[in-house]
Amino acid sequence: MITLRAYHPDDWPALWAMLAPVFRAGETYAVPRDITEQDAHRMWIELPRAVRVAVDEADKPLGTYYMKPNQAGPGDHVANCGYIVAAEARGRGLAGQMCEHSLGLARELGFTAMQYNLVVATNTVAVRLWQAHGFAVCGTLPGAFRHPVLGAVDAHVMYRRL
Amino acid sequence: MITLRAYHPDDWPALWAMLAPVFRAGETYAVPRDITEQDAHRMWIELPRAVRVAVDEADKPLGTYYMKPNQAGPGDHVANCGYIVAAEARGRGLAGQMCEHSLGLARELGFTAMQYNLVVATNTVAVRLWQAHGFAVCGTLPGAFRHPVLGAVDAHVMYRRL
Repeated sequence: MITLRAYHPDDWPALWAMLAPVFRAGETYAVPRDITEQDAHRMWIELPRAVRVAVDEADKPLGTYYMKPNQAGPGDHVANCGYIVAAEARGRGLAGQMCEHSLGLARELGFTAMQYNLVVATNTVAVRLWQAHGFAVCGTLPGAFRHPVLGAVDAHVMYRRL
Repeated sequence: MITLRAYHPDDWPALWAMLAPVFRAGETYAVPRDITEQDAHRMWIELPRAVRVAVDEADKPLGTYYMKPNQAGPGDHVANCGYIVAAEARGRGLAGQMCEHSLGLARELGFTAMQYNLVVATNTVAVRLWQAHGFAVCGTLPGAFRHPVLGAVDAHVMYRRL
């Protein structure tokens, strides 16, 4: 049983252990592959409006997401989230569970839509997952992501109203 | 004759005098309408990779644009720009001139594409102008911008390769 709860500062080492390999791999996030731990903390914990942690029965972190306004001012009713699942917890539906949770949290926080700015088009598992949770591919950015293996690949902008 | 040149710190008061009414109006930029001068300076001058100023024969600033990577890491080959024309200089093709100049500068700086994240769809003059400079509407975000007069309006993501 996985539950979602608020982030506590004690979680950071476990979260960084999930985030670092994903950022270092450079296959899914538009984040510098050599991002420092301090910058990652700023990006995932300090700047967002909310951070949640997915934990098992023993309160062990297995995933996390952040939520922030995607734009400022007249665009700040659209939320943006990023999700990361620990390597050992993949294939158990955790990303979908976090997505669904984030849609509820976004509504609670007063957002009326959610946008993913850059979903790597070759990551078809992710694209299909977000579609299953109500997101549409609003547009495709040609060659907007430099994949370390595949080279320049397209990226989707995905969006849904809440 | 309008020319484009690098920004000098002395330009700031003239630039802020152009930016403030546009941000206060809240009709085109996803920037807080009550943004402080300090935050605007940070956004337009400090954070971007480059800032240019359009000046007349007397070196009077009539427009400005900033350029920055639209994303970090594997997405940092795509540039993003914002353009503002002084109220008294509108209707003279200055926005198009700045757009064309920015495309050249982006190539010089090594960018291989340019993206506008939020072009208010009701601003048809801007949409057509960017299309005339090679941008395509890659996608449309339903209701992603709260226009002060029109309410929630769509916003386009516009993109072109360089």
